[in-house]
Amino acid sequence: MQTKAYATQSPTTPFAPHTIERRAPGPQDVAIEILFCGVCHSDLHTARGEWGGVQYPCVPGHEIIGKVTAVGSAVTRFKPGQTVGVGCMVDSCRTCAACEDGLEQYCDGPVGFTGTYNGPVGGGENTHGGYSAAITVDQRFVLSIGHAEKDLAAAAPLLCAGITTWSPLKHWGAGPGKKVGIVGIGGLGHMGIKLSHALGAHTVAFTTSAAKTADAKALGADAVVVSKNADEMASHAGSFDLIINTVAASHNLDAFTALLKRDGTMVLVGVPEHPHPSPGVFPLIFKRRAIAGSLIGGIPETQEMLDFCAKHGITSDIEMIKMQDIEAAYARMLKSDVKYRFVIDMESLKKG
Amino acid sequence: MQTKAYATQSPTTPFAPHTIERRAPGPQDVAIEILFCGVCHSDLHTARGEWGGVQYPCVPGHEIIGKVTAVGSAVTRFKPGQTVGVGCMVDSCRTCAACEDGLEQYCDGPVGFTGTYNGPVGGGENTHGGYSAAITVDQRFVLSIGHAEKDLAAAAPLLCAGITTWSPLKHWGAGPGKKVGIVGIGGLGHMGIKLSHALGAHTVAFTTSAAKTADAKALGADAVVVSKNADEMASHAGSFDLIINTVAASHNLDAFTALLKRDGTMVLVGVPEHPHPSPGVFPLIFKRRAIAGSLIGGIPETQEMLDFCAKHGITSDIEMIKMQDIEAAYARMLKSDVKYRFVIDMESLKKG
Repeated sequence: MQTKAYATQSPTTPFAPHTIERRAPGPQDVAIEILFCGVCHSDLHTARGEWGGVQYPCVPGHEIIGKVTAVGSAVTRFKPGQTVGVGCMVDSCRTCAACEDGLEQYCDGPVGFTGTYNGPVGGGENTHGGYSAAITVDQRFVLSIGHAEKDLAAAAPLLCAGITTWSPLKHWGAGPGKKVGIVGIGGLGHMGIKLSHALGAHTVAFTTSAAKTADAKALGADAVVVSKNADEMASHAGSFDLIINTVAASHNLDAFTALLKRDGTMVLVGVPEHPHPSPGVFPLIFKRRAIAGSLIGGIPETQEMLDFCAKHGITSDIEMIKMQDIEAAYARMLKSDVKYRFVIDMESLKKG
Repeated sequence: MQTKAYATQSPTTPFAPHTIERRAPGPQDVAIEILFCGVCHSDLHTARGEWGGVQYPCVPGHEIIGKVTAVGSAVTRFKPGQTVGVGCMVDSCRTCAACEDGLEQYCDGPVGFTGTYNGPVGGGENTHGGYSAAITVDQRFVLSIGHAEKDLAAAAPLLCAGITTWSPLKHWGAGPGKKVGIVGIGGLGHMGIKLSHALGAHTVAFTTSAAKTADAKALGADAVVVSKNADEMASHAGSFDLIINTVAASHNLDAFTALLKRDGTMVLVGVPEHPHPSPGVFPLIFKRRAIAGSLIGGIPETQEMLDFCAKHGITSDIEMIKMQDIEAAYARMLKSDVKYRFVIDMESLKKG
């Protein structure tokens, strides 16, 4: 099936129309017409080869919302016309302990999980993501979407930004009686604030910009701390159960570690281009604190998050763009000039 | 009570005989004649002012074994003649959540816990440690020692080196079915190997020196990995539940992080003089790994460890020295020339 898409042909080539091949649905497959695709910073890193190992042509996009157009003979959970989502993964080994635990993102198979674009972690055949008109995905990696039609575009970023913050919030027990910090108020951070708040945790947003205070409160933050203000920071010393740090730029982690209570954990979900200054060992030792990492989320927990968000009316705050405007969107994303996620209206692709 | 001791008078002054004042036991106090005191690397750091904030004269020593000589009127758990131990702490606020949880080392009181030497964490009156003939300690911070008389000297290092490895081993669930790594085979590491093995975990020792292989196996390691050998390291990738890293020198943490399985934790118990190279974020994110810290252990878990060691005949491997030879011992300790802990025979102090 010849399918319209937008692709980069090299790290330095701008996006341009491109035609990709999508497979006809096999017995386990769901064929999907893509309606909306969120724009994740990983799309930019990959399209421009900043993390290395990119197979070109590269068609990014892993925050996909669409309608089922056809299903294979063995597909029972989905039917044509249904609204579905596809996130960061389209396959995994399915037999390792991680896959059996529903944590396919940590797949221990020979090539790890298969990203929705740029293929398996360990190398292999390329895959093409949501900057395209359609996609065919094994039913195991298709999510059902319970949001209202009017909310579908804004639900797209839940598939990456949402689950990337939801997974550590749930894993480390965010909820009533817990104090949770969200560092950075961008694509990931604004979802972290909404989800932590909805889970019932006392939620504190950290930002370098005092101008974001009102916005962060509107997103659901109980308090906002300007992280450059040492006095404000000190007033929260030793008080957090959990901090989700979404900032991908290199920064001083110790300033946040010091805010964790005993046995508290700071979870990094962003990867800086240049290493963070080395975190101090004393702040870890003196309260048995931990610095951990967390990667997106497994399929079952993604479905759990989507169902939770549909029930509570939670979506991302988005700005809709046309596929043709992707380069301009990347330029703005690099300046953090977006509240808080670009989503591509794939209707535009029909005209491009 | 005038008491013989050895003290430094400044960061650059060698140890010399010194007389300190010990309080007569109040109602809650236990007066102890010190028989043996282990020599911890922290003693050296403190005596020489390397961590700053030292009050001189400085009498180090927090691996104390002795005999009760007198008890206060309210003391019920101890009586004269009994063998007891004193570890790294002699007091804490006793009312914060950490103290109520029996984790006095993480005391959230205004000045934290009171170290056996060099006073409270947050500043205050000085305390003097075990490089002395006697000490008076509140019963809450006195441990009972069940080891045989012949093992008392070798039991002294359990009070710091033992509990510092026991606490994270227990907290992070070392036991049957778990694979535990111990990095560094020194004072802390050799205890970590013994305790992890005794707890039933599959225990792997990491050393930079192939010459230590036989020794590590004799201590109880199921396997020994020379950490400079990349192939040996790679053969253990993604396989550890827990790694206790005892190395206080700056080193590449990523080489060990990569050996953790999903949700595995590396616990740092040593503080390097210069920061470690900044740990990579990808290795944390891709398997939800954590780097944590752990500080000695609380009084209840110290007693649990001592009872466990008495029952299983576990002691430290020691080399006995005289109080007068402390400077030579420090010089050798700096070269890691000790298997694996110096213990001062306090009988020598009577002659010094």
